[in-house]
Amino acid sequence: MKINYLVLHNKKERILIIKRKIVLCLLAGLIGISVGLLDAFFGRILLGITVFRDAHVLWLIPFLAVGGFITIFLYQKFGAECMQGMGLVFSVGHHEKEKIPFRLIPLVVLSTWITHLLGGSAGREGVAVQIGATISSAVERKTKIASRREMIVIGMAAGFSGLFQTPAAAAFFALEVLTIGKLEYSVLIPVMITSYTASYTAHLCGLEKFTVVLQDTLNFTPNVLIKLIVCGILFGLVGATFAQGLKYTKSFFSEKIKNPYIKIATLSCIISIYIVLFGIGRYAGLGTNLIGASFTGQTIYGWDWALKLVITILTLAAGFQGGEVTPLFSIGASLGCVLGSIMGLPSMMIAALGYAAVFGSATNTFLAPVLIGAEVFGFSYLPYFLGVCAIAHVFSGNASIYGKQKTLE
Amino acid sequence: MKINYLVLHNKKERILIIKRKIVLCLLAGLIGISVGLLDAFFGRILLGITVFRDAHVLWLIPFLAVGGFITIFLYQKFGAECMQGMGLVFSVGHHEKEKIPFRLIPLVVLSTWITHLLGGSAGREGVAVQIGATISSAVERKTKIASRREMIVIGMAAGFSGLFQTPAAAAFFALEVLTIGKLEYSVLIPVMITSYTASYTAHLCGLEKFTVVLQDTLNFTPNVLIKLIVCGILFGLVGATFAQGLKYTKSFFSEKIKNPYIKIATLSCIISIYIVLFGIGRYAGLGTNLIGASFTGQTIYGWDWALKLVITILTLAAGFQGGEVTPLFSIGASLGCVLGSIMGLPSMMIAALGYAAVFGSATNTFLAPVLIGAEVFGFSYLPYFLGVCAIAHVFSGNASIYGKQKTLE
Repeated sequence: MKINYLVLHNKKERILIIKRKIVLCLLAGLIGISVGLLDAFFGRILLGITVFRDAHVLWLIPFLAVGGFITIFLYQKFGAECMQGMGLVFSVGHHEKEKIPFRLIPLVVLSTWITHLLGGSAGREGVAVQIGATISSAVERKTKIASRREMIVIGMAAGFSGLFQTPAAAAFFALEVLTIGKLEYSVLIPVMITSYTASYTAHLCGLEKFTVVLQDTLNFTPNVLIKLIVCGILFGLVGATFAQGLKYTKSFFSEKIKNPYIKIATLSCIISIYIVLFGIGRYAGLGTNLIGASFTGQTIYGWDWALKLVITILTLAAGFQGGEVTPLFSIGASLGCVLGSIMGLPSMMIAALGYAAVFGSATNTFLAPVLIGAEVFGFSYLPYFLGVCAIAHVFSGNASIYGKQKTLE
Repeated sequence: MKINYLVLHNKKERILIIKRKIVLCLLAGLIGISVGLLDAFFGRILLGITVFRDAHVLWLIPFLAVGGFITIFLYQKFGAECMQGMGLVFSVGHHEKEKIPFRLIPLVVLSTWITHLLGGSAGREGVAVQIGATISSAVERKTKIASRREMIVIGMAAGFSGLFQTPAAAAFFALEVLTIGKLEYSVLIPVMITSYTASYTAHLCGLEKFTVVLQDTLNFTPNVLIKLIVCGILFGLVGATFAQGLKYTKSFFSEKIKNPYIKIATLSCIISIYIVLFGIGRYAGLGTNLIGASFTGQTIYGWDWALKLVITILTLAAGFQGGEVTPLFSIGASLGCVLGSIMGLPSMMIAALGYAAVFGSATNTFLAPVLIGAEVFGFSYLPYFLGVCAIAHVFSGNASIYGKQKTLE
């Protein structure tokens, strides 16, 4: 995307390249609109399902295993390759695979609705990012206007942005997530265009953005500084625990129970019991209830974050679809809320820091969580997010929920 | 710096690595303090010199050629290699050279004072960054605690941060400037530690931070959006013009006039005449007068930015020391101020955007200008800086004032 004035001596060539760049920007806008529409469609129905489930939780959770059966059946029948989900997106982004089949979209949307209807604990960004990447990779194959990697980055940004309506965070998430340490500056402008259009489109279609008005401030005494460092370390460790825990749990159960139907049925039973036992649905679904409680002064228990973490790992290891990000937000916020009150710091402020930092630590990203923090809680808090997310980033190690993520040496 | 839990099975090895990381963080703090002190010493005297020069401009500017002679003499006598300045820093950062000699510090400090005393148009960050890199590279050779590249990044951050007291921008400037597209995450925490300590130390030593309280807001109509895009494009082109102009002017005069004494004398005469003719010293020195005028509603002429650009290029091409960044800030601010009033947008706001974007375009950095904008004008404006700097970044092409900068493909 960057215009290199020195290389382009030939006028014809220059005009051709500039034309391609303009077309790519226009396509990025169109991708943003389409993905924003799909995100809004998927996201609004998902929120409706969540409300319905919360109202009938004891009637629905016992049937989680049935939902698991349907999920596995759908994927095995219509697209086994699609089961890899984000792994497939990363593979195409790294030019290891060629395409994402279109059927992935209905599969992932439908099976995520099932997950949430029946009380599994999972996210939703996996769906949004996969929708975005599927569409942009189709555009790449039709037009050959940019590399596969560049188009995947554009699609991921659109998907993330439409769902969360945090366009700057979405742009940097997509720019940095494929290879940690590298930013895909070649598509900086198309990524920003697609992020803003997707966000705006989803907003127009009535998908609400989650924001919190923080009013806390911190006085930077050495005491407060040390406490913030401790929080950063804990957020990093919890993010890493989630990523490593998910990885090991997935491979553990895949090895122990070879048949995916039996695996998802067995785990579903355990999850159903946990979800009913612990707070009757408190740890079902996205975890927006915990996020809401963290920022409205409602009760957050010291074990909320840990139970949400375990049940989300079990849900995803079982084979349910959805994603990890919203549960990560809720794990971070509820952990931060508790840490804040233990340490005598404003608990909403620490919850906000945890919201961003645990997400960053589990995805091994850095600029995305800083900007998510700024876009959800206000840009004036950005320096806090910068500091705490940096510490969390280092202490999370190279753990990542994305097995196919690369790291630049 | 990143802790990789998977690789470190051996407990002894793990403790050793963690020890090294802790020592590196402590050293980064010490580097920050030392560089902050030196920055404050250099910077405060420089500001005193600027005030003195402005009061006696007609008495001093005729002697610019003498200052040039002394500069060349000092470098040729005491350290010809040091003449490369930032080029040397980049070479060590890319492991192409081994060390930066200590004598570089007194040489660059003294010769920059001479430049500014006698009215040359140049910056000051070159000095600060070279001080930082010289000290950190000495620490690297003594301790071997991190790679040469990592230590150079730490030193550059400390130097930049102490001078401008914009620690986040300084950290990202250092993390991204050596290789565009790559972030040196391996030293994220030491870089942040050194930036904040350098900034705080310089502040304690009485070096003032430049900040502006903006009160403008923009309503995002399509009309305003298009105008902002045009501004971004122009900032990018002006930044690129500066970088390319400096490069060509340097090589042009180096080829035409082989003897550096004759070169600096000839160009000094031209510069002296220009500086007296055009506004009697208006374009001498750092350009903080133009920055001040842009943000206090004083007169800014439509040609201010262009004259400042030309005279700065001539000063640096002649062989004077100092740097480019503060003149870039002043070129950007005065251009933005004019664009704002032409386009009917709040001119201080556009001046702020120009301040950041022209600097980013000429140095080929992206995160640094966005954060400079946020740290000087307020974090709530960060989204504006993000958008305009992105456009400027793309339109500036691969131009950079740092000839030895690399770009990640």
